[in-house]
Amino acid sequence: MARQRKYGTRVPKGGKLKVISLGGLHEIGKNITVLEYGEDIVIVDCGLAFPDEDMLGIDLVIPDVSYLEKNADKIRGIFLTHGHEDHIGAIPYVLRTINPPIYGTRLTLGILENKLEEAGLLRSAHLHTVQVGDVIKAGTMSVEFIRANHSIADACCLAIKTPLGYVFHTGDFKLDVSPIDGEMMDLARIGQIGKEGVLLLLAESTNVERDGFTPSERKVGSSLEQIFMSNTDKRIIIATFSSNVHRVQQIINASVKYGRKVAITGRSMLNVVGAATRLGYMNVPEGLIIDINEISRYNPEQLTIVTTGSQGETMSALYRMAFSDHKKVQLSGKDLVILSSNAIPGNEVLVGKVVNEMYKRGVNVYHEPSIVHVSGHACKEELKLMHALTKPKYFMPVHGEYRHLMQHKELAEFMGMPSSHIFVSDIGKVLEIDGKSAKFNGTVPSGKILVDGFGVGDVGNIVLRDRRHLGQDGLMVIVATVNTDEREIISGPDIISRGFVYVRESEALMEELRAIATKALTDCLNKNVTEWNEMKTTVKDKLSKHIYTKTKRSPMILPVIMNV
Amino acid sequence: MARQRKYGTRVPKGGKLKVISLGGLHEIGKNITVLEYGEDIVIVDCGLAFPDEDMLGIDLVIPDVSYLEKNADKIRGIFLTHGHEDHIGAIPYVLRTINPPIYGTRLTLGILENKLEEAGLLRSAHLHTVQVGDVIKAGTMSVEFIRANHSIADACCLAIKTPLGYVFHTGDFKLDVSPIDGEMMDLARIGQIGKEGVLLLLAESTNVERDGFTPSERKVGSSLEQIFMSNTDKRIIIATFSSNVHRVQQIINASVKYGRKVAITGRSMLNVVGAATRLGYMNVPEGLIIDINEISRYNPEQLTIVTTGSQGETMSALYRMAFSDHKKVQLSGKDLVILSSNAIPGNEVLVGKVVNEMYKRGVNVYHEPSIVHVSGHACKEELKLMHALTKPKYFMPVHGEYRHLMQHKELAEFMGMPSSHIFVSDIGKVLEIDGKSAKFNGTVPSGKILVDGFGVGDVGNIVLRDRRHLGQDGLMVIVATVNTDEREIISGPDIISRGFVYVRESEALMEELRAIATKALTDCLNKNVTEWNEMKTTVKDKLSKHIYTKTKRSPMILPVIMNV
Repeated sequence: MARQRKYGTRVPKGGKLKVISLGGLHEIGKNITVLEYGEDIVIVDCGLAFPDEDMLGIDLVIPDVSYLEKNADKIRGIFLTHGHEDHIGAIPYVLRTINPPIYGTRLTLGILENKLEEAGLLRSAHLHTVQVGDVIKAGTMSVEFIRANHSIADACCLAIKTPLGYVFHTGDFKLDVSPIDGEMMDLARIGQIGKEGVLLLLAESTNVERDGFTPSERKVGSSLEQIFMSNTDKRIIIATFSSNVHRVQQIINASVKYGRKVAITGRSMLNVVGAATRLGYMNVPEGLIIDINEISRYNPEQLTIVTTGSQGETMSALYRMAFSDHKKVQLSGKDLVILSSNAIPGNEVLVGKVVNEMYKRGVNVYHEPSIVHVSGHACKEELKLMHALTKPKYFMPVHGEYRHLMQHKELAEFMGMPSSHIFVSDIGKVLEIDGKSAKFNGTVPSGKILVDGFGVGDVGNIVLRDRRHLGQDGLMVIVATVNTDEREIISGPDIISRGFVYVRESEALMEELRAIATKALTDCLNKNVTEWNEMKTTVKDKLSKHIYTKTKRSPMILPVIMNV
Repeated sequence: MARQRKYGTRVPKGGKLKVISLGGLHEIGKNITVLEYGEDIVIVDCGLAFPDEDMLGIDLVIPDVSYLEKNADKIRGIFLTHGHEDHIGAIPYVLRTINPPIYGTRLTLGILENKLEEAGLLRSAHLHTVQVGDVIKAGTMSVEFIRANHSIADACCLAIKTPLGYVFHTGDFKLDVSPIDGEMMDLARIGQIGKEGVLLLLAESTNVERDGFTPSERKVGSSLEQIFMSNTDKRIIIATFSSNVHRVQQIINASVKYGRKVAITGRSMLNVVGAATRLGYMNVPEGLIIDINEISRYNPEQLTIVTTGSQGETMSALYRMAFSDHKKVQLSGKDLVILSSNAIPGNEVLVGKVVNEMYKRGVNVYHEPSIVHVSGHACKEELKLMHALTKPKYFMPVHGEYRHLMQHKELAEFMGMPSSHIFVSDIGKVLEIDGKSAKFNGTVPSGKILVDGFGVGDVGNIVLRDRRHLGQDGLMVIVATVNTDEREIISGPDIISRGFVYVRESEALMEELRAIATKALTDCLNKNVTEWNEMKTTVKDKLSKHIYTKTKRSPMILPVIMNV
């Protein structure tokens, strides 16, 4: 492992620095960022995105890294800011074609190891654990890890020293002056780097629409204690994000204080708590955590259950509890369920469904995010502080939808930056900086690759369009066997439909359609039309028109005509 | 039209009152409520619901009214609280089987007339316009219309006098002490009815989770004026709910004050503004409104454009503007777009998409719902006021998801009602009240009927399940012609897939699948298996297994085997 305090010595003057975001879906500059100077490439993060609602059947979306594959020899490393899916989740896919060293803090790599293990890539990967303060040489550049606060432990900002000056990448951050693990974001070091001279700031933009400061994680602890205090007669079940180790620590603290054992359910929660405990990121008294199978040995009021499912995910432990489908936990009026989370946009309806279901079972539900949740992202005043400390020459807002980036641009202007020094980029766009100026200059191949089951990239726009069509309107298959020589229909036409109408209640319509198909086929045969495509198109058009007139629907129609 | 001030005289003592909610999806007691006493039925509202995300291809959801069809001779009328879709939208469907008199205020019926006209039912429907204060006889019951405030003009509460006492139905309401049309909710009359004795209160629950009072609609007017004042150099485009006549009035007022002409775009906005102006619900100076085709004659800063699309609806005028697909309005940096609305849960992502797209075009976007929008529903303190004024003996929270109803129950308990007098109902459940007590007693047929195109109720669970399967995983059709006598495959098997994978890039897989299908068919024929279902199932199972092993996907597989 290359670890040093001195910066690289080969410093070719007059070079150009390229800054490229490769990943993201709605959000730009989020999953993966590439810095390129001369013969060296530094990669910041390598995450995945979750599919849009209209990407039917898709599990994950990963970035197109063909640009990196083509420049594999230049890559000096992947440097990870923290262990969230949208920052590390694409690594198991990317390592199939490139295999650079990967640098990250202990918890970040701990979580990554689980993923690589599952993918059978752990042995071949080159993982290097760093501590905050470490500076990793990366050719003509070097990367320094700096403590940040976030909704996951062990998060970092990265200060990448280039021959042209520092590029400061905030990663995901907030300022927590009373963090749970005692380590506040290293404002001193950030300020020092600001004084040394930051060429370019890349700062996240998630909460740029929110005024003020994001509250400390510790606030949630106080709220939880209050709730524990006034519910000493109930079993308490808390759903939260599995990666929020500090949140789980506070749940454990409150449980210790109020004499409760803690059981954990949900695969990702078990994984992360396991890794965090093993690596010393959590402080759990001996014997406090019990197996979920043992909960029946305790009275409800002696138990806290920590679970996944705070987003209403249909496969999660909380969802299964709500719908009486969890093997170990049956909910009742003796339970208080706390959703220690906010609904991520798009998940509100799902969360609402789970909450309603629990109310129906008489469960007490507490789901006020302003009290039992805090964000992990910087609000306006924290972002201003970041700008004030780093005093960058150029600024690129990242990690946000377009509107966030534009509002972050406005914030930077408010802080005194000239508009012409601010670059709102897009996926694949190249920002080029030299000693004198910065400008957008071209693009590199980029985009989203859809993952469906084992398939990576084999589902594209046409397949998605067909899925949407099939999903909205259903399907009708028309089958017939003809003998073109004899000009006769040997069997059929038969109609098979799925997702269209109840066939039993639509016999009359089906009869009409069969008659129309028969006539269309007979006409074709009589007119000596034996070109398959023409015959199929004729049948399809006639049926399609009739169906729309009768039902105002447009199922996908597949004519299957065989010749014998 | 039967209109009278005296209440019904035939008062059979000892009867029972039934209260039934027939409609709704997540929300209970919303679309349609039935009151039945002896031989008389009073229907309150008759609305539709919008489909869930998993109801693929469905346009609308209407209530099952078979109970009303069976008791058609008892129905004394449909009484409408206000003109929103979820309260009147099912009428064109319901009038196909029953045709009772329909009572509503002027604007409510004005909006309904548009719908009935489209459905060709306007001539046959029996519409009766009422004014607030009117009491309509309905057999042994009578219905009084009382002014309420809401996000649509001309909204009412209904006080239904029954032989057992008043049933007070709030409809959708808020208390607006400074309403735009000068008419505050009639607290005096509501209090008087409370003194006369309310047997049962049905009150809406939408905002029961929110503290305090809902701000006055007038607040939005002040905010709009501020924004107009500081944007005198831009064209202003405002998207809002088309039915919010008062909101549109305030946009008009601000436009008059700042010397702007107003153009309107979006079908429903044109419809509602047309009806409201015609019926005198809006005060529009002569010559203020210009046709959207004339906007090029004015400078941007002389124009306000009012549009639909505040929910990001893909067919709406605002969506088309954002994606440069609107014939008359091209957006640019000279425009300020105001979203005078909040995103209804489930629509956040769509709204975000539209906003991002506008930011990309350099458009100035203002979308802070706390400033340019107010809710139309009562918050906690207003609900308490309603309970305090009506002092009901029994209470049924309505118009809310289950969690809202339960929280409204808690609120009623806080107001001093005994738990046993509060009835959280469900769709189809019958609340039975007599002189002595109230209790749930059985259910009536109820539920949701899905509307897809012209089809009403012909899409059920199996069709939806198939649509979801096809949409998620796509389709594979296997076609073969066999001769069972000769035990040979005459043609095929051929494979047609849609929504599964790019076939061109999966030639190898397709080749494997063809081989598997051929073997399965040959085995069947050799073993003399000529029973169609068995043959199909064999082929399907073999293919399904192989596909899952290779791709971790489960497309719908349709084997089509023909015999010649």
